[in-house]
This record gives sequence, C-alpha cells and structure tokens, in this order.
Amino acid sequence: MSGNTFGKLFQITTWGESHGPAVGVVVDGCPPGIEMNEAIIQKMLDRRRPGKATTSTSRKETDQAKILSGVFEGRTTGTPILIFVENQDARSGAYQSIADVFRPGHGDFTYQANYGIRDWRGGGRASARETVGRVAAGAVAAQVLKQENITIIAHTLALGGVRAETFDPMAIHENLFLCADPIAAEKMAVEVDRVKRAGDSLGGIVEIRVKNAPVGLGEPVFDKLDADFAKALMSIGAVKGVEIGAGFAAAGMRGSENNDPISPDGFLTNNAGGILAGISNGDEIIVRAAVKPIPSIRIEQQTIKTDHTPTKISIEGRHDIAAIPRINVVCEAMVGLVIVDHLLRQRAISVMIPVP
Amino acid sequence: MSGNTFGKLFQITTWGESHGPAVGVVVDGCPPGIEMNEAIIQKMLDRRRPGKATTSTSRKETDQAKILSGVFEGRTTGTPILIFVENQDARSGAYQSIADVFRPGHGDFTYQANYGIRDWRGGGRASARETVGRVAAGAVAAQVLKQENITIIAHTLALGGVRAETFDPMAIHENLFLCADPIAAEKMAVEVDRVKRAGDSLGGIVEIRVKNAPVGLGEPVFDKLDADFAKALMSIGAVKGVEIGAGFAAAGMRGSENNDPISPDGFLTNNAGGILAGISNGDEIIVRAAVKPIPSIRIEQQTIKTDHTPTKISIEGRHDIAAIPRINVVCEAMVGLVIVDHLLRQRAISVMIPVP
Amino acid sequence: MSGNTFGKLFQITTWGESHGPAVGVVVDGCPPGIEMNEAIIQKMLDRRRPGKATTSTSRKETDQAKILSGVFEGRTTGTPILIFVENQDARSGAYQSIADVFRPGHGDFTYQANYGIRDWRGGGRASARETVGRVAAGAVAAQVLKQENITIIAHTLALGGVRAETFDPMAIHENLFLCADPIAAEKMAVEVDRVKRAGDSLGGIVEIRVKNAPVGLGEPVFDKLDADFAKALMSIGAVKGVEIGAGFAAAGMRGSENNDPISPDGFLTNNAGGILAGISNGDEIIVRAAVKPIPSIRIEQQTIKTDHTPTKISIEGRHDIAAIPRINVVCEAMVGLVIVDHLLRQRAISVMIPVP
Amino acid sequence: MSGNTFGKLFQITTWGESHGPAVGVVVDGCPPGIEMNEAIIQKMLDRRRPGKATTSTSRKETDQAKILSGVFEGRTTGTPILIFVENQDARSGAYQSIADVFRPGHGDFTYQANYGIRDWRGGGRASARETVGRVAAGAVAAQVLKQENITIIAHTLALGGVRAETFDPMAIHENLFLCADPIAAEKMAVEVDRVKRAGDSLGGIVEIRVKNAPVGLGEPVFDKLDADFAKALMSIGAVKGVEIGAGFAAAGMRGSENNDPISPDGFLTNNAGGILAGISNGDEIIVRAAVKPIPSIRIEQQTIKTDHTPTKISIEGRHDIAAIPRINVVCEAMVGLVIVDHLLRQRAISVMIPVP
Repeated sequence: MSGNTFGKLFQITTWGESHGPAVGVVVDGCPPGIEMNEAIIQKMLDRRRPGKATTSTSRKETDQAKILSGVFEGRTTGTPILIFVENQDARSGAYQSIADVFRPGHGDFTYQANYGIRDWRGGGRASARETVGRVAAGAVAAQVLKQENITIIAHTLALGGVRAETFDPMAIHENLFLCADPIAAEKMAVEVDRVKRAGDSLGGIVEIRVKNAPVGLGEPVFDKLDADFAKALMSIGAVKGVEIGAGFAAAGMRGSENNDPISPDGFLTNNAGGILAGISNGDEIIVRAAVKPIPSIRIEQQTIKTDHTPTKISIEGRHDIAAIPRINVVCEAMVGLVIVDHLLRQRAISVMIPVP
Repeated sequence: MSGNTFGKLFQITTWGESHGPAVGVVVDGCPPGIEMNEAIIQKMLDRRRPGKATTSTSRKETDQAKILSGVFEGRTTGTPILIFVENQDARSGAYQSIADVFRPGHGDFTYQANYGIRDWRGGGRASARETVGRVAAGAVAAQVLKQENITIIAHTLALGGVRAETFDPMAIHENLFLCADPIAAEKMAVEVDRVKRAGDSLGGIVEIRVKNAPVGLGEPVFDKLDADFAKALMSIGAVKGVEIGAGFAAAGMRGSENNDPISPDGFLTNNAGGILAGISNGDEIIVRAAVKPIPSIRIEQQTIKTDHTPTKISIEGRHDIAAIPRINVVCEAMVGLVIVDHLLRQRAISVMIPVP
Repeated sequence: MSGNTFGKLFQITTWGESHGPAVGVVVDGCPPGIEMNEAIIQKMLDRRRPGKATTSTSRKETDQAKILSGVFEGRTTGTPILIFVENQDARSGAYQSIADVFRPGHGDFTYQANYGIRDWRGGGRASARETVGRVAAGAVAAQVLKQENITIIAHTLALGGVRAETFDPMAIHENLFLCADPIAAEKMAVEVDRVKRAGDSLGGIVEIRVKNAPVGLGEPVFDKLDADFAKALMSIGAVKGVEIGAGFAAAGMRGSENNDPISPDGFLTNNAGGILAGISNGDEIIVRAAVKPIPSIRIEQQTIKTDHTPTKISIEGRHDIAAIPRINVVCEAMVGLVIVDHLLRQRAISVMIPVP
Repeated sequence: MSGNTFGKLFQITTWGESHGPAVGVVVDGCPPGIEMNEAIIQKMLDRRRPGKATTSTSRKETDQAKILSGVFEGRTTGTPILIFVENQDARSGAYQSIADVFRPGHGDFTYQANYGIRDWRGGGRASARETVGRVAAGAVAAQVLKQENITIIAHTLALGGVRAETFDPMAIHENLFLCADPIAAEKMAVEVDRVKRAGDSLGGIVEIRVKNAPVGLGEPVFDKLDADFAKALMSIGAVKGVEIGAGFAAAGMRGSENNDPISPDGFLTNNAGGILAGISNGDEIIVRAAVKPIPSIRIEQQTIKTDHTPTKISIEGRHDIAAIPRINVVCEAMVGLVIVDHLLRQRAISVMIPVP
C-alpha cells in the first residue's frame, strides 16, 4: 500500500536506502522447487554494476548478494526469499553539503514536502540504489522464466540522440552501451565523451523484447499485460515514457496499417508488440522506455535550500553520465517480474477450466 | 486480482459486457458526506457519448446511469456505490457474422485462447463499452476533486497526423475534436473526412493536464504517481504509449536542459510534468496517451476463423473512425481516479505525522 | 480496502443497503467455463429466506437473483459476474421512528460516529440483508466446489442454550432449525417459542463441516486456512467467536490428548479440525461460529438519541428471534468462498513446481 | 498473496526459517517522524524470549534486533523498515532425526504435501520462531499507539485447566505466567510442574484488552475490526479459537442480556467487547485466543515417516511446555498491528469528510 511492493502472485517488496546499512528485497510467491543460490542472484546483479561503460560512476558497488531465507538445499521452498546486499563504499560525508539543498531533477523537494523528513544521504530511498532489490528479485523471476523457456533482452535503442538503425542481438554485449547496432554504439561513445567533458548528462531509450511468452498472459481491463509493463517501467526513477509495439507511432497510423493481419501461421506484422486487448498473443513482446538524463550534473544549476532561499548547485563527485546502460538490466528485471506474475495468475485460472 | 479492480483506497471494479444486460461499476472507498446524485454521474457520462464529432459511431448509447447503493439523501455514506447502466440498442444479431472470426486488432483471438470461451457480441468484455463504468466512477472521483479544488482537462494533441501547435483551453470545447488549437481542429476534420470515405480509421494523442494538485501525491518506488498514471492510461484498450512531462523527448535531452531549475517561487520549467521521484511537486501535471487507430475498418483485412482457417474480413456497421474524442473523458476519468486514490493515501499518513 | 471485498483470487465485493433500491455482489476471479445461471443462484438464495422456522421474520424477501454480466450461453466467461437482487417489501417508513435513536446491539452508534452520516433505514449497510450478496457469491463458489467434489454442510450445534448431542446429517433438513439432532431440535422449538412470547431473542452455535477438501489448502503464516475462516465468519454481523476443531476445548487439553496421531491410513483423531499449521491435511474440516442473539427485541431497552439524550426503545415489527437458522447458509457460503479462493491459490503455485 | 503479509495500510511481511541464517520483518506504511531505534524493538522482543517461566524452552534466543532501513536520525522516514534478527544457537543437527518423520500436531505433513519440499530443521517456516518478526513489527506499531495514547495488555486467562477468577492488571507481571489472578498463577505453576514431569504439554487462553481505542476503527462488512482480530490471532500457529467480548457465551444468552444498554455517559455493559457492527465503540476492546498445547512432547506418539510407513516418535530436547506465556506478547503485537492499520484507514477517510 505504501508503494514498496510490486506484483500480485509473484510479489516483491524492496527496502533500503542508498547510504543505510543495506538494501534488498523480499520475494514472496516464488513457486517451490526452483533451483536457487547466491551465485544466480549475483550473476544478474553484476550486470547492474558500474562497468567499463564511460557513462558509469566510479563508485565501487561490489554488491554481494546474500540469501537469508526461503531456500533450502539449493531450491526454493515456497516461503519468502530475503535477499540482502550490504552498502559498501558509502561515503555519506560526501553528501553532507547537500543536506539542506534540493537538487533539481531529484526527489529531495518532494520527499521533504511529503514526509517532513528524508534521508538525504545519496538520495536515500529515492536513489537508484533501490534497484538492487529489483534486479535481485528479477534474478529469481528469471529462474522461473528459464523453466518456461521464456527469454528477455534489453538493449539500448537510443542514447544522447543517437538511435540504433539495425538490430543484431549478438552485438548487444559486444559494446559498452548494450546497443544492438555496432555503428550506433560508436557514435554513442563519441557523444557520451563530449557530454562528459561538458559536465552534463544524457538520456536515451531502452527496448525490451520477450521471446516465447505463451498466449494468454494478462488480465482484462485494468491488469492488462501492457498496463502492468507501463507501471513496472514507469516506476523506475529515470523513466518518463513507456510504449508498446508501434507505441506513439501508432497515433499517426491508419487502422489498415496498424492492424496486424492474422494467418493460420500467426500474425503477419507486430505493431501490437505482442499484446492484444491486454493479453499476450504469442508474438514477440516489445516494450520501450524513455530514460531521462541523469539529473546530477557538474554544470551549475539554480535551486533552493530547504529553507526556500535561492542557491546554486554544481554536483561534483561520482555520478553516471547516463542511466543507460546500467538501467537496462533493471528494465529487464521489471519486465520479467510482470511476466512471472501473470504466468502464475494465468495458471491459477486455467487449471480450473473444466474439460468439456 | 482478476484485473477488473483499480485503485487501492479509492477502488473501482467495473463489470459488464458490450451486449449483456448492463454495464457498470462499484466504487468503494469514497469518503462519506460528498454530494452525489444521478445527474452528476450522467453529466460526465454524456461526454463519453457519440456526439456530433464525425469520428463517432452512430450507435445510440443513451446510457442512463442509476445509483443503486452508497448514497443517502443526496450524499455518499462511505459504503460502496453501485452504478448501473442498461445496455440499449444492443443489436447483437449484427455480430453473429463474426462469432467465428478473429477480428485483427481486437481481443477476439487472445480472449478465446485464454478463456476457451468468449462473449463475441461486440467484443464482450473487451469492448470500449466497459469504459462506461470508468467514466461513471470518474464522476464520483470528480466530486472529491472539486472539493479539493483540483481540475483536470483532457484535450486532443494530435489526430490523424495533425498535431496541435497552440494551446487555448477555451478552444477545447468549441470544436468537435476537443482540440485546443482551432486551426489544427480544422485540419483534423479534413483528415477524418478523407479517412472515413476510405473505410479506414485514425489514431492520435490525448494530453491530460491537472491543475492545483497538492505537493506530495504518490508513493515512493512502485506506486509513483507517474507509474500509476501509466498503468491507468495503458489499461484503456486503445492506448499504446504513455509519457509524463517531456516524456520521450527527454530521452534526447541533456541533463542541463531537462532538469527544472527551482526558485523560491517554484519550478522555472516543467519538463518533469509536475512529478519528481514519483511524487507531485505542486506544478501542473502533464500526461500524454498515444491512441491507436480503431481496429474495426471497412477495408478488407486478412485473418483467420476460430478453427484457424484463413478468411477475409471487412467490418461494416456502426464504428467510430477514431477513439478520439470519445476517449478523452475516459483518460480524464482515469487520471482523476489515480489522483483521488493518492489523495486518500497521502492523508492516511500525513495526519499521523507527530507535531514536533 | 474499504472492507467490502473478500478473497484474493476468487474475490467478491458486496454492495447495497437494506432499504435502498437493490443489494448484490460482484464476483471476480471465477474460472471460465463453469455452468452458471440464475436458477443456480436462486436455489442457494432461497435457503437464506425466512422459512417456516419460528425464529424467522415474516418480512417477505422474495429475492429474485438476476445475473447482469460474466455469463454467456450458460457458462462463466472469466469476467466479473454481477448479481443483482431488488429490494422489495422495503417499508422504510417503519424505520422513521428510529432515525434519531441508536438501537442497542446494532451498528447505528458506530456508523454515525465513523461516517457522520448513515442510512438508518433498517440498518442500511449494516443490515443482515447485506448477506444476500454473500450467499449469491457462495452459490457461484459452490459450482466450483461441485466440480472438485467438495461438499459443505452447516448445521445448528446449539440454540437458546440447547445443544445437539448427536450428529445425523440426514436429520438436518428434517427440522426447522437445521439441527442434526432431532431431539435437540424439539427442545429448541420449545425454547424459541418461550422467548418469542417474552419479546426476547436467542443466540446459538453453527458448525460447518467440509468433506473432500484436498490436502494443501492454505498459505503459511498469515493466510492460514483457519485464519481465513476466522475472518470470513467473524465478518458476519452476529458472529462473536470462531473455533477450529477442538477449538476452545483444546485450551484445556494436554498435548498427548490434543495431538492427532498419524497412521499410514491417515489421522486417527481430528482435534485439528482438518488443518495443520494453517494448511488442510485432507481430513474433514470443522469450524464453529458463535452467534449472538438478535439485538432487535420487543423488551424495552435503555439507549440514547443521536443528540445523546437518554431514551427507551422497544423494537416492534418483523424481526427474527434468532439469526439461526437463516445464518447457516451464510456461514456455508463464507466457508465455500475461502476454500475456492485457496484452491485457486494452490493451483497457481502447484502447476509451476518443476517435475524432478 | 502468499500469506506472508499482513495489514493493508500498515503492512508487515515476515520472512525467515527457524534454522536459516536469520528471521525478520519488513514494516511498510509506518508514518514518518515516529521515534524509532533498536532499543525500542529489543524491549518488546525481549518479552518474547524464554524467561524464567517453567513453561519455557531452555533454547537461548538472544535475538538481537537490527534495523537496516527506514529510520534516519532516530525517526521513521515513511519508507520500509527492515528488522533483522540473526538465528543463533541453531543446532540443526538436533533435528536430523526428524528429517524423514512427520511430527503429530506440526505442519511437517502439510508443508511436505503442499510444497513437495520443506526445511525440516526445527519446523522451518512453520516454527514459532517466525513470530520474532511479528513482535518486532508490533514494537513499531506500539510506537504509533503510544502517540495515540492507546494501550494493550495481554494476560493469561487460563492455563492447563486453571482459570483466572480475578483481574488485577498490576499482578500480571508479578508472576511467571502473566496471569492477572495471583492465586490462579500459583495453581498454574503446580499444574505446569506436574505435566512437565509427565513429558506432556498444556494449552490455555490469552485475553487481550485494549484501552483508549477511539470510536470508529473498523470497516463495514468484511474488514470489521473483530474479523481482522480473528484473522490476526488465528494466524498464530497455536491458536485454535478466537472470541470477542462475551464470545461463545453470547451464544447462550438472550438479547435482553447480551445487548449493551447505552447511556449519555457510554455503554452500561460490554458484552460487545468494544465492537459494534465491526466498528470500535469507544469501550474497552476485549479479545480472547484459545491456545492449543505444544505438540512437541516427550510422551511417545504414533506417526508416519515421509515414505508413509508407520513409526513412533518421542520428542526430546528443548521445548516449551506451553506456548503461554511467550505467546502473550505475540497476541499483543497482532492486536496492535490491526489497530494501527485501522487507525490509518480511518484517517484516510475521515480527513476527507466535508465540513458542513
């Protein structure tokens, strides 16, 4: 109810602040008997870490996942899985200077207004560090997806105004920006470098594709599969837009263009992005998230203090230039969580259907 | 859990099929003592009706709302409000011909696959007629918003490739397309007319603006105000994309452009669309929804029958050319529902904050 | 969230006031393909009607159930089922005299205090008439149970201080009090007659037994099967106590008496009432509900008016002498709803368990 | 959804197994600004520890609570509070002998049947050790209650067949059994001693009383305050019955006895146990829970192995003779959690009531 829980049958609750003792997640509703251990969590968590990508912070986030419950002899037991990641290298002193300033583009102002108190160290609860819990939960979901042979990939469709023109899935992990177009990736590198020197930051677009999702995921009306993707992705701090299939482009199409003709072998086009009337149609699911530029920039900005007097702020220190590519695995995790939740929901109903 | 319920504290459950006896909604969690009567519901419901706009169906939907519970002597009592609208002019015979065909762009295929049974008359539960319940509930929410002096307007930002260039709120109700730019509205009329003659249909973009929302609406992490807007709007059948403030454009901006500087008098720009870290910042809230073209078109399309043999379909009969402008009041209703829900959630917590 | 919804996967929302236009329920989450029609609902609803039992009111509640959604060609479609029962014979004028008096034992005082407004006609929302919706939903649940071969019976264990000493299931429907002990039933009749003449009322105990429930219903910790029964039954207005198996008697037992020994053929005793650690163990499930006397009595009682001045009240008119036996089918319905909800929840998880 | 979460606005999720690395709880929805630190949690947790009471195990549960999130500079921030308690003295080896045996009265059989896997060490998730998380959460709730001046006491009404005849709140903490009747407490000691020597165990009744609860807690229909108490208490492993006010005794009363007359100064009796139509009436709230005897006994019992062959079991080792008095603070915590949840729910609505 307080917004820290996501999912209905496969339900996660993240907890923790950027510079508190730890961050993590409780995963509740994972079916029993699934193979699970800390290495599985760690592997997905490592993809969220600042890598060599020049967009990334140099903060050392070693992020060692520990499983404290819900797993016995290498398998899930059906009870809640608590995953715990200690906060290390948390130099909260570095944030002392912003304790009484509202950083533009951050939640400092709204948290203070809403709660009358906030943990200002590194953004506290509003920090992107909260996504550690999401990715750890996503790793649990991924084990269920694996069993169902469903695969999810997230790639960088655009960064700093450079848009991928081609899609080669093999290329994604061969460049620092997780871009499926190697040539675009090179242009992104140039742009990132330019902006980094300027003390500024960049936005972009992440596209998430799901293969092998069965027909029938999603509930009518409010819990449409696309509605849940929209909420899942928009709940990531930096995301300002979500679209499915043709998305905003569909607004400019005619019905005869946008409708996907159906043949006995399946749909002939995929403007629907694999979802019809909120329910997966068996086609590839395609979702995109618009990611705003990182708000912490070295360039001086106008703002106010907590006492509402005006001031200027220039944010030095270790910050990413773009949420991409680190945010990609977070998007992938969120999409995975939605799919596993709907898998369980579909099963609950489908097994009850009387055989005629 | 089955996707027919929306909201947490102010909670609605819609029910009903397009050609069943009735459609409607249960509104649960409405505070007591709010002025309520059938005329209030009717007024908002009438805005959803096919009007003179040339995009609209000629189906006669008189839609008389009846309140069956939760209101006593003209005021809400805090108990569930059941709103009931009889289905009239429901010529289900007209649909007999599509009983065994999956219409492209509709939910026929996915509903059949998921449930093994579907009410094929007019789309059944997947019909846009389900939004009658949403708008009726939105009318209840609007009474709460009125008391808080919060106003919401939905206008047509784009239709059939024509985009509004200016924003004059007074113009919205002076044209058939609810467009705030009178010149664009004229171009839209031309385009609609052309497409109608071609037996095709059109998409567009609806923008929803909220004035006077207090600071502090929205919960951290998953129930961010923008995440709930995304889900609310994406749950409308025709919507394929949602964005907040600068939205997808933010993906191409630099941080120094996108960040909204703060002054003692408030935010100097509004790329955030009135929401920071998922919590309203007191600025105008701006949300946009991409609406796909109506899938029911006269132009012949390729599809399959329920027995998976190929066929062609040309959908004659009474259908809208575009979901816009009838969908606008649905968008407005959904945004209103989200805001009232978060108003109640904020109050639950804020009144407990100890006075220092 | 406002307390009018029950269940998680099989979810019902009741609505309506005693003397408003109608009462009813939305059933959401019913699996598709289940046989359903108004006669099925009506049959269970008729068991809730005032019968020949001398405990019953003479109010004519014909209670014709209408299904307004969710059913197509005699089968459920998986979409919400709206059941609607018009209020007839609603002589609200008879209640005018109590509009400004708080009746002892009723919710008049607490509703007024909590909401600042109440529909005082016949208790409004707090009336036992709300249970029409529960029983109608129970009839839907019963169709699912039938398919699983699970049966539920509710019988009168005690009434007016008379306790059944024997249990003959065949006897239950052969007396007016639904008592499985024919001799006790005769004594109950005598007691009811005596109390009726005195203008007073009676309480009793209802026992609900479930046969053929599979092993494995119930979730650990908070959603234990017995915890959900406790909530389900205690949510009935007249119920003041709930116990499972040996119940309160277990408090006086030793472990060696209370533990049910296990043999290869099953449990040798059933003090557990069919539930171990909150999960059904395959044995018969036994739950009991303590029902308080009807608070509306002819005997004069001391009370206050809405302006808090003292007054006396003697409630004339058509009232039951005891909630039993009409409440029995309500108890049966609530137990059925809990079981179907947990059946669906168990299925959601069990189908995902990987085959070793 | 998987049963590890309790509450709607003030929501807790417990996690952890008896002999896993740790147990604990996430408390979500706690209002911001409440004084909070580890000593506050510890103080309540210490009351759950095996004390000097001769009913208690000699297992050393030092149970040091650590707060890992949601608290900043000694106050809650409105974000989730993760409380973590390491499992120490967890001699899982001692349980190796029961890995393949179902202990009578325990959840071994049902967990195995439901999940196909179970952490058999000390009962795993079904262990009473799970209540560490409940009590820790109860300590957070208690801080909110303190601010509202609401007090809760739990006392032992009966143990081993000995029932308290008097109620002296000052006496409760002056005997080992938390009994408000010092003479009964002495008799309890005798009975406990006798049963302990016999290798058997005892049940009893805990009564929980709430003072100063405001009028208006509880929602109509399903989320009645008493329904939520019933669920809260019945969700404790050892509890087999719950009653409110007169409870099961009300079943034998007449209406004229059971109704509480109302005077301008309040209710003249309290058979209702402070709750009318599911909503608190301002009177003292009285709830009772029937506690079954501890199932782990030294006396030999008949049972089966996991392969369903018959065997005998005699449970040696460190086990409580009765859940009382350690369970009392768990009952107190659960009642406190329900009250805080309803306090927040009431506030959410009441602040919206328009001023006439």
